[in-house]
Amino acid sequence: MSDFNELALIDCFRQRSTSSPDLRVGIGDDCAVWQPSGAQLLFTTDVLMEDVDFRVAETTPQMIGRKSLAVNLSDIAAMAGRPLAALVGLVLPKSRGFDFARDISEGLQSLADEFRASIIGGDTNTWDGPLVISVTLIGEATERGPVRRSGAKPGDWLFVTGPLGGSILGHHLSFTPRIREAIELHRLVDLHAMIDLSDGLAADLFHLLDESHVGATLVSDSIPISNDARRMTDGRSPLEHALSDGEDFELLFTVSPEDGRRLISMAGIATHIGTIDAAPGCRIQRPSGDIEQLARGGWEHQF
Amino acid sequence: MSDFNELALIDCFRQRSTSSPDLRVGIGDDCAVWQPSGAQLLFTTDVLMEDVDFRVAETTPQMIGRKSLAVNLSDIAAMAGRPLAALVGLVLPKSRGFDFARDISEGLQSLADEFRASIIGGDTNTWDGPLVISVTLIGEATERGPVRRSGAKPGDWLFVTGPLGGSILGHHLSFTPRIREAIELHRLVDLHAMIDLSDGLAADLFHLLDESHVGATLVSDSIPISNDARRMTDGRSPLEHALSDGEDFELLFTVSPEDGRRLISMAGIATHIGTIDAAPGCRIQRPSGDIEQLARGGWEHQF
Repeated sequence: MSDFNELALIDCFRQRSTSSPDLRVGIGDDCAVWQPSGAQLLFTTDVLMEDVDFRVAETTPQMIGRKSLAVNLSDIAAMAGRPLAALVGLVLPKSRGFDFARDISEGLQSLADEFRASIIGGDTNTWDGPLVISVTLIGEATERGPVRRSGAKPGDWLFVTGPLGGSILGHHLSFTPRIREAIELHRLVDLHAMIDLSDGLAADLFHLLDESHVGATLVSDSIPISNDARRMTDGRSPLEHALSDGEDFELLFTVSPEDGRRLISMAGIATHIGTIDAAPGCRIQRPSGDIEQLARGGWEHQF
Repeated sequence: MSDFNELALIDCFRQRSTSSPDLRVGIGDDCAVWQPSGAQLLFTTDVLMEDVDFRVAETTPQMIGRKSLAVNLSDIAAMAGRPLAALVGLVLPKSRGFDFARDISEGLQSLADEFRASIIGGDTNTWDGPLVISVTLIGEATERGPVRRSGAKPGDWLFVTGPLGGSILGHHLSFTPRIREAIELHRLVDLHAMIDLSDGLAADLFHLLDESHVGATLVSDSIPISNDARRMTDGRSPLEHALSDGEDFELLFTVSPEDGRRLISMAGIATHIGTIDAAPGCRIQRPSGDIEQLARGGWEHQF
């Protein structure tokens, strides 16, 4: 056994882990065993790295642990699914000691509790390198099925669930994954296509358009811009931040015009930002009425 | 997009990914979607780190990718399950470039093909730090159910599937996960308890004993010792290496004496190394007949 008390950390997870009737074997054997109820299962994984996805000096270990699960919850939300269970791979810097690791697990577990996900397994390691956290999340589709990226149709209206840009100022750590909103939307309307905004609107919109074999026109005045985007002082406009900043973790989706009108009548649930076109590529309509081509933007790292 | 062509790497996985009737959505959406056939599902995850689990200068990227899946396959084998699907989290050093990453994926995919596991998703990242690979593997139990660590009974015979020790000389990279052997054993006999040997016999045996609330007595002369254990030149005996070296990735299991006799009659399938006792702790019987206490050994890092 290493000096680092890894078994004590595992016990932190084991004691806190909630039970589910479908969970037959949790932490403590070679694998977790899950007996699915018959629903379609959703799987997603994300790796967070120190000084890439967070800085230890600028936040708390609880918020780092929280984010490692939150980014995965956002992927489950993007298919309008419910989270079920998570596996956690921790690579811990030896120098930071046990309390740091326990606080990471605490932040992760608290968000798991909030969204009723069970931590069912993982792998805990220490080294002399930086902190790395890998989380795999299992969810289930609702009875209406998973919402793909590929279902957008010409004429659909494009919506987004919240204001965009400037998440680097703190939202990228503190955001609430849109699980509840996605399930509510999926109940209210027929969601044709959906994606979560992790790489930035101008990047993730193209993923949705590519998979759906369609194009889009955004209306620049209608894009909701966050207060953080307006607070950025790097010389780029708030709209540019809203279009290209990553890690908003809002949902971008398309519905029929009829469903779109219903959503607009329910003020606040989502914002109408544009329309799906048959013509490929993406355009943006300026307040002057001029239409410009929108470049594929943001950074790309997920599959 | 970063300089590193991450989308090209994702395409490597996407093009190679095999289809399964249960896989409704593979790589390319927010989550993979799996419709289980009704079997109990198994979940396991392992993280490999550069200079801890492998050294880039001492092997090939293909072997590193292979190992990242093989260690997870070993956990599925330890429950006598069949592998189904994997998610791959890659943290790639920017300095090593695209070909290195593609070769890792090639090694991983080849082993996945051999064991009919589909790569259904993942997360690809680059940084200035060392290589980290996190794999989550989903499997299914056979109709006989998963084999737990907790089912050993006093009087059971203890078996191991192959020779132990010295895996640092190469076996830790090149081993074949005991998936086929476990399914065959599960078909032939009633496996009471099983674990894969990742932390070393003297460590993993205690995990099995703890979970089963029993003890054991090993017969030192009967423990199969690998040629690599005999080639080690650090002054420790081959038996010590067989007891305490990690990463053998053989299976340790218990069966009734009746089933044990059947296995012994099928020469070569597994080696009888001891007996389960009601008395807690672990003892080892020397060739002289003397019985000594066996210390809890090896390193501990998994949960």
